[in-house]
Amino acid sequence: MEPVFPLDLKLPARGAGHITRDLHQQLRDAIVEGRLAAGFPLPSTRRVADSLGIGRNTAVAAYDLLVAEGYVLPRPGAKAVVAEIAARQRTVARTTRSVDRANWIHPAWAASIPSFGSRKGLPARSFRLGVPEHRYFPHALWRRLTAQVQRRYARAGFGFAPTDGMPELRAGIAHHIAFARAVACSADDIIVTSCAQQAFSLIALALITRERRFVAVEDPGYSPLRSALLGAGAELVPIPVDDEGMQVDRIPPNVRMICVTPSHQSPTGVALSLRRRAALLEFARAHDAVIIEDDYDGEFRYGSRPLDALQTLDRDARVFYVGTFTKSLFPELRKGFVVAPRWAGPALVEVKNKTDSNCDAINQSVLAAFIADGHLARYMRRMRKVYAERHAALVEGLEQQLSPWLETIPAEAGLHVAARIRRKRDTNAIFEAAHLHTPGVVAMSNYSCDPQAARRGADAVVFGFGLMDAGEIGPALLKLRRALEKTAAVRE
Amino acid sequence: MEPVFPLDLKLPARGAGHITRDLHQQLRDAIVEGRLAAGFPLPSTRRVADSLGIGRNTAVAAYDLLVAEGYVLPRPGAKAVVAEIAARQRTVARTTRSVDRANWIHPAWAASIPSFGSRKGLPARSFRLGVPEHRYFPHALWRRLTAQVQRRYARAGFGFAPTDGMPELRAGIAHHIAFARAVACSADDIIVTSCAQQAFSLIALALITRERRFVAVEDPGYSPLRSALLGAGAELVPIPVDDEGMQVDRIPPNVRMICVTPSHQSPTGVALSLRRRAALLEFARAHDAVIIEDDYDGEFRYGSRPLDALQTLDRDARVFYVGTFTKSLFPELRKGFVVAPRWAGPALVEVKNKTDSNCDAINQSVLAAFIADGHLARYMRRMRKVYAERHAALVEGLEQQLSPWLETIPAEAGLHVAARIRRKRDTNAIFEAAHLHTPGVVAMSNYSCDPQAARRGADAVVFGFGLMDAGEIGPALLKLRRALEKTAAVRE
Repeated sequence: MEPVFPLDLKLPARGAGHITRDLHQQLRDAIVEGRLAAGFPLPSTRRVADSLGIGRNTAVAAYDLLVAEGYVLPRPGAKAVVAEIAARQRTVARTTRSVDRANWIHPAWAASIPSFGSRKGLPARSFRLGVPEHRYFPHALWRRLTAQVQRRYARAGFGFAPTDGMPELRAGIAHHIAFARAVACSADDIIVTSCAQQAFSLIALALITRERRFVAVEDPGYSPLRSALLGAGAELVPIPVDDEGMQVDRIPPNVRMICVTPSHQSPTGVALSLRRRAALLEFARAHDAVIIEDDYDGEFRYGSRPLDALQTLDRDARVFYVGTFTKSLFPELRKGFVVAPRWAGPALVEVKNKTDSNCDAINQSVLAAFIADGHLARYMRRMRKVYAERHAALVEGLEQQLSPWLETIPAEAGLHVAARIRRKRDTNAIFEAAHLHTPGVVAMSNYSCDPQAARRGADAVVFGFGLMDAGEIGPALLKLRRALEKTAAVRE
Repeated sequence: MEPVFPLDLKLPARGAGHITRDLHQQLRDAIVEGRLAAGFPLPSTRRVADSLGIGRNTAVAAYDLLVAEGYVLPRPGAKAVVAEIAARQRTVARTTRSVDRANWIHPAWAASIPSFGSRKGLPARSFRLGVPEHRYFPHALWRRLTAQVQRRYARAGFGFAPTDGMPELRAGIAHHIAFARAVACSADDIIVTSCAQQAFSLIALALITRERRFVAVEDPGYSPLRSALLGAGAELVPIPVDDEGMQVDRIPPNVRMICVTPSHQSPTGVALSLRRRAALLEFARAHDAVIIEDDYDGEFRYGSRPLDALQTLDRDARVFYVGTFTKSLFPELRKGFVVAPRWAGPALVEVKNKTDSNCDAINQSVLAAFIADGHLARYMRRMRKVYAERHAALVEGLEQQLSPWLETIPAEAGLHVAARIRRKRDTNAIFEAAHLHTPGVVAMSNYSCDPQAARRGADAVVFGFGLMDAGEIGPALLKLRRALEKTAAVRE
C-alpha cells in the first residue's frame, strides 16, 4: 500500500502499548524538522489507520495531541494541515546562534569547574570516585514511601515549601547527625540544601565581602568548593595537607574563612588530628574567622573510634557543618544540609530564598519518613559493613600487591583510599596500567590548586570503592600489579 | 503495674502498626531532652513488653534503633544504658546560642524579601495568589509515572544528573513551549532550574557587574525577582506600569538589563502592548542591554489571540525567557527553566554548577515522561477551561457587584485579576471587608518598589483564582459588596 506520509515511519508492533506516542513523536519531529512542511494536508485518520495497520483510535489520539500542541491546525470540513508556526521558529532560532558576547559574563563565574577522568566509557563496576553502591538500597521501600507521601500531598492541596526545609526533615536530620556524627544541633539550626554544593555557595555568598575575602582551602582539595568560593568573590589561600590533614599552622592571619574536610580529607583520606582541630578552632577564635566543615562521607568509618566533628568541639559559634545524602543514600536525591551557627542561619535562608527559594518538597518528605522510620540508621549500619569489607580489601590489596609502587595513605573513613607513587619515574606506567585494569581511578594532582605544579612532584592514585565489590578489588589490583611487573621487565 | 520508665509514655493501641516507632521516638526525645539521664540503665525488653502490654519484638526493635543511633550503649551481660553523648550536646548547643555577628553578613543579601498577607489561617479555598488548583491534577497518574521512573533508576545504578537538566526533560520543555508559547528554541537552549527564582538568580549572578549594574524592573512588580538582582549587586531602576504594561520609554539609557512580565504583568495583569514590545527590543539593541522575560503564568490565556513572546520576536539574542511549572503543574515540584541565548547558556550552567550543581533527577524524569506522553498538553487544555470559567466569573462579579468601589484592570491571562480602588478614602474599608469575605486578596501597593509611597496613591486589590471555584467567586464578591454597602450606610 502507498505510504500516507512522505516519511519513513517506524512503529512498534501492534499491541505494544505505545503506538500512539511513537506515531505522535515521529510526526511531531517531522514537522519540527521541516520534513512535513507547513500547510501539508494530513491524511484522514481512517487512511492512516488502514495504511499503517493500527487502530483508528490510535491515529485519532496522535492527531489530537498534535492539535493540542499547535503542530497541526484542524479545519472544519477539510483536512487538518501542518501549522505555520514551526517553520518560523526554526528561522528565528537560527538567526540567534552566532552572537558572541563573552565580555558580558561576570569573571568570577566564568571559569569552568575542572573536570577530570571522563566518566564516559567507564564500566558499571569501576573504581570511580564519589558514587555510592546502589544494589543494597531499599528501592522498593523508597518507592512505597514516595507513593505514601504523594498521596498525602494530593489530599492536602498545593503550596510552597519553607525555604529552610520541611520541618519533619529538619527534625529528622538533627536527630540523625546528633547520633551518627555527635553534631550538636536542633532542627532550628538546620537548613536543607541541594546537597553540599548549595550549602558552600550559600555560606560563601552570605559571608564573603571584600574585607573578608581571604579563604583558606585544602591543597589538594575538592575543586567544586573552590569554584563556589571564587564565584562569591573569594581569594583562595591554598594550605598544604600532610598525614595529619590541613597544616593549620600555615594559615595566614588575614584569612577569615577556612574550609576543611576533617573526617576524611578529600582526596588524601587522612583525618585531621586532634591537636590540629584544637589549633584550627583557636585560630578562628583569635582571628575572628569561621570554619566550613565538609563532612561529605564521614558517616562511613572503619576501625578506631572516630574523632569528634569540629562542630561538636566548637564553643564559639564559628563552625558551619555541611552534610549530604549523596554518599549515604544516592546522588539523584540531591539533598544535603548545613548546620549553621544561630547568628548566621537567617542570612543563609535569605540567600537561599533569593537564589532558588526552596527544594522540591516531596523528596524532602520522603527522606524525612525514611529517617523517622529508622530506615536510614538501618541502611547505614548495613552499608558500613559492606564498605568496611571493601575498604579492608582495598587496603590489603594495595599493601600485598602494589607496595613496590604505591604507598597507601592511612584512611579510616569514607569511600575512597589514596596511595602515593613511590618513584616519580613510575607515574606514567602506573596511570596507563590503571586505566586498563582499575578504571575510574584518578590522579591526586587533579585535586591540586595548581595541578601542573602538583604533577612535577610525586603524584598519588585515588581509588574509589563505592562501585567495587570486596571480592572484585583484589583481582583488579593483581592485574594492575602484573601489568606493572611486565612494564618493569620491558624497561630492564 | 509500676511503670518501667520514669516517663509518661503514650503508645497507640496494640495492633496500630506503629508502636515501635512511637516507643522509639518517645524514648529518644526523653534522652535528648535529658529526662532519661546518661547512665540510666534500661529495663529489659521483656519487662518493657510486659509493663506496656506490647510485644517483645516491638520493644527489641525500638531498643535496636536507639542503639544503632547511639542513644543507648549496649553492655554485654548487663543492662544497656543511656549514652553519655546526648548530655554533652545539649551543653554545647546552649553555649553557642547567644553570639551576634550581624556585621558578618554581606549587605547585598541581608534584607528580607518582603512578605505580605499572612498565609496562616487562610481557609483551604481562598483568593490566595500564586497557588494553582490541585483537584483536577492527575495525582494517580503522576504517582504511577514516578514509580516507573524510580524502577528505571533502580536498575540503572546511581549517578549524577547533568547540570543543565536531564536531556529528556530539556527536549520535552523545548517541544512544549514551542507550541504552547511559540518560543523558538531547541533542547540545547534550555537550562532546567529550581523554578523561576533560580533562573533569575543565575542570570543576575552571571551578567551583573559593576559596569552593568543598572537593571530596570516593573513598578509594581514581583519582589523576589528584585531580591535576586540586589543579591547579585544590581542597582534597581523602577519603571512605572500602565495599561499597556511597563512604560518602556522611561527606561534610562544606562540600563543594561530589563526585567518584564509581558504576557500578564505581575501584579496588574495587563499585557505589554505590541508597540512597547517592539520599543523594548529596540532599546535593548540600541543600548546593548538584555531582557529577562518572566512568563510565569502566560500559558493560561482567555479570549483574544495571545501576543507573541518577546523571545519569539527577538532577532538579536538578547532575551532570556524564564518559565516555571509552579502554576501549570504544582509548586512542590520546584521546576522551572530558562531559554538562554546561545552566548549566555554555558555561563548560566557554570553558575548553576557552582551554586547548586544540579536539580533532583527523578522528578525531572517524571516531568519529562508527563510531557512526552502528552499529559501536560491535555492537563493544560483542561485547566485552561477551568481557569477561564473562574476568570470570567471574577471579572463579571467585580463588574456587577463591586464597580462602585473597584475598577477592574483588563487582563486576559494568568491566575489573578487586579482592580483599582476608585476612591482613596474607601481603601481601609475595602481591605477590612475583603479580609473577612474574600480572604487571600492582597493590596497591590505591596508589590511596589516603595510600598509606603504607593499607599499614598490609589491602591488596588489583587484577587487570585487558583483556589476558588467559578461558582464560589460570585457569592464571595456579593458578600464583599454587602459589607461595603453597610460600611457606607454607617458612614452616611
